[in-house]
Order: sequence, then structure tokens, then C-alpha cells
Amino acid sequence: MSLQNIRVVLVNTSHAGNIGGAARAMKNMGLSRLVLVDPEDFPSSDAVARASGATDILDGAQVVATLEEALVGCTLVLGTSARDRRIPWPLLDPRECATASLEQAEQGGEVALVFGREYAGLTNGELQRCHFHVHIPSSPEFSSLNLAAAVQVLTYEVRMAWLAVQGQPTKMEKLETTAMLDVQPVTADELEHYFGHLEQTLIEIGFLDPAKPRHLMPRLRRLYGRSGISKLEMNILRGILTETQKAVRGEPHERRQE
Amino acid sequence: MSLQNIRVVLVNTSHAGNIGGAARAMKNMGLSRLVLVDPEDFPSSDAVARASGATDILDGAQVVATLEEALVGCTLVLGTSARDRRIPWPLLDPRECATASLEQAEQGGEVALVFGREYAGLTNGELQRCHFHVHIPSSPEFSSLNLAAAVQVLTYEVRMAWLAVQGQPTKMEKLETTAMLDVQPVTADELEHYFGHLEQTLIEIGFLDPAKPRHLMPRLRRLYGRSGISKLEMNILRGILTETQKAVRGEPHERRQE
Repeated sequence: MSLQNIRVVLVNTSHAGNIGGAARAMKNMGLSRLVLVDPEDFPSSDAVARASGATDILDGAQVVATLEEALVGCTLVLGTSARDRRIPWPLLDPRECATASLEQAEQGGEVALVFGREYAGLTNGELQRCHFHVHIPSSPEFSSLNLAAAVQVLTYEVRMAWLAVQGQPTKMEKLETTAMLDVQPVTADELEHYFGHLEQTLIEIGFLDPAKPRHLMPRLRRLYGRSGISKLEMNILRGILTETQKAVRGEPHERRQE
Repeated sequence: MSLQNIRVVLVNTSHAGNIGGAARAMKNMGLSRLVLVDPEDFPSSDAVARASGATDILDGAQVVATLEEALVGCTLVLGTSARDRRIPWPLLDPRECATASLEQAEQGGEVALVFGREYAGLTNGELQRCHFHVHIPSSPEFSSLNLAAAVQVLTYEVRMAWLAVQGQPTKMEKLETTAMLDVQPVTADELEHYFGHLEQTLIEIGFLDPAKPRHLMPRLRRLYGRSGISKLEMNILRGILTETQKAVRGEPHERRQE
């Protein structure tokens, strides 16, 4: 079932109790895959106490060192964001986030819902690894939700969306009807490789000055991140970069078009 | 404003931390009126700690001995219920509960959202004092939410309903307005110029063979066409093509990044 394709990623959590609360919220809403990026205190009896029976989620939690590891294989990455950012990013509310997550999961993609630190949230660098930002519409005067409460809201919306699509033809079936054969989405790590390749190429052609990068790469990340790039399209984009590098370096090239 | 007409009633709560968590969730969602029916431990430092700044809600909480006192003046009473009951009752999901609450509050009525004990919920007698029951659609295998998490879900839905009926722009819309600074979309003719420039550049770097174009340009059109490219992003993409051409032709370039 599609809910298995949706993972919850908690970045650098300080309070183990929140990990337990998040696990309980997940299990209540039918989610099971928890990934912890560099937690400060885990495993922990506080987590077990707050999980209140959802210990299987804690026992099965994957602990990794970096956000990159947590996102391996993901085709859609949604990061919670409390604040206005200088570089505006495609922004969803929790309901839109749930719809997008379910659609992606029904197509066989892997989705990550990423939650930041209790006091500092996600860094700008981490937020730029997300395809979309999700903002829980809280009161402007008191906007910061408890971490487990934020997990509860997003997973609740995912369950509501999941219940709404039960019994209806899935997106996958619709897509198969349309016979689109190249909609297999790229994963977050494939997208990261592309951004690395793109940045290197932009330096080689003299468009990007590494000493003064300004907002160029974040803007390109935002553009390509929201575009839902397929594996076939990624092959084309990578091919363009490779041929550009060869042409600039004066190397011979073969034609590598699709 | 109508949110002031919606009170949260917690019946016979065991853990003061949950009262604090509920207060925080309420303040996050713009609610302020908390009524505690015979709490086991209140006031409490645990409640203050979990409220995390929402102490004004705790300080203003009304403590009463019976549910009847908590419901004085209420025109609509909604009770959370985890279980199927022997006596069927009109049952709402959290979204329907929020819509009904807002409608009542906008008409000047007083609404109570009633939450039961951590382990035993509301008694049948208490549930029969409610006009409607509300069930949070949790997983049948693990259905009992933490009390503060349940308050978070219902108050979140109330805020979503409240935002939907506001004539004023929501936080989300304001953010989008800010983002508008660089989301002015490109026009169809600007996109056509881009595709012409892109095709020419792909020929120059040797990636596209005009004699055998295959499906390369249609595929790139589909990708960029669906991405909702802004004028600023178009300037960046055009700049990349121009610098690529200069680099391939061996012409001197200025750095033209954004």
C-alpha cells in the first residue's frame, strides 16, 4: 500500500521525547518508516515512553549521519518551513503536501517528509534540497509548533488523502491508461548528482563564479526541483552537460541525443 | 473574531504535560479559551514546560468541577470519540467538525470541543451530552492518539476552516505575494524564443543532429513547458545558453550570472 512509500525524516532532533511522539503519531496515521538524521539522544527511554506502544516504529527507525543518506531513493522531498525565506520556494499547505505525497507514492515513488530541529528548523541548505516547502498555517503571533505536533498534522493529512483515494482508480492505473512510458521519476540522489554536474559545467563555461555564487544554484535547484523530472529527461539533461563540457574543452564528441 | 467563540474542554486529564501541549497547540492555531474539568494535576510545572510559551492560555484556563459547568452557554458541543459506541451518534470527521464549529461561531454561537481522559476517553454519559461525535480517522490497529495530538488535529482543522472563510489574505497568500517578486511567469512567445535558442545551442555543442532530431526537442519542450518558468529563471536559462555558445566558439565572455 502506498503509505509505505512515505517516510518521515527528523533532522538533528534534540529531545528524544519528540521522537517518541512522532513515532506514535505516525503509527496512529498508518505510517511506519522513520529516519533519524544525527539525533542527539537515541535510543532513549524518553522516546519509548512518549511512543506509548509505537515501539516497533522506534525499533525499525533508520539512524543516518546526513540528510543526503536519509533521502536516498526519494523522488519527492517536502521540507517543513516555519519562516519566510529570502529565496521564495514552491510552498504547499499540509493538505496540498498530502495530495502531492499520495500521488507520488501511488505512482511507486518514494516520498520524504522532512522536519527540522526543535528550535532552529531546517537550514537554508537543507531546505534547498527539498522540492517543496510545507508551511503549517499557524498563528503569526505564536507560530512554532511542537515537533511531534507538526508530524501529527502532516501525517493526519496524509491519512485523510489516503482514505479519500481508497476505492478509486489509482493515479498509476490512470497513467497506465495514458501509456506514458517515461514518467519514472528521478530520485533525490540522482537530482543531487545533476546539480553537482550542472554547477561544475556552469563554472567551466564561465557563467558561475565560485567566489561569487550569489543565488544562482538555489534558483536552479528550485526550478528543476519542482519540475518532477523523469529518468529519461534526466538522461537528456546530463547528456547536454557532458557534451557542453566536451565542446568547451575542445574534446571530440559523439552525438548522444535520445 | 470567531475563533474566540470556540473553547477547548479537557475532561479529567491525568498528565499535566498534556494540558501544556494542548495549550501550545491551541495558541499555535489561534484559539485561546481552555476549560479544564476536574484535572488531576493543575497548575503544574509539567504543563508550563510543555506549553513552551503558551502560558497565557494556562493562566487564563477555567477550572471547573463538572462537564455541565464547562458547557454553560454553548450552542454546539462536539465530543471526541475513539471507539464505536453502542448507541450510534451523529459522527463527524475533524474537517466536518471544523466547518460546523466555524459556522456556529460566525453566527455568534459558542462552541465546545470536548476531549476525554487519556486512557478511557469520554464516558457514555458525557458523550450523550455532545451534539456530535468527532472521530479522528486513525489506523484501526493503533487508534489512540495522544491527547495533545488530538487537540492539535482538531484545532488545526478549525484554523484551516477559519482561514478559508477570511476575506483577508492568508499567511500562505501573503507569502505567495512576496514570492511574486520573481514568479512573474514567462509568456508563450518568450518560451518559444528560449526553445529556438536552446535548439541552436544543442546543435552547436553537437548534442542535436538537425538531420536526425528524433524526440529531443519535444521532450525538452514538455519538461520546460510544465515547469512554470518565471521571467527571472528564463533570464538565467538564456544566460547559460549565451555563455555556452561563447565558450564553444572560443569568444571572450563576461560573467553574466544572476
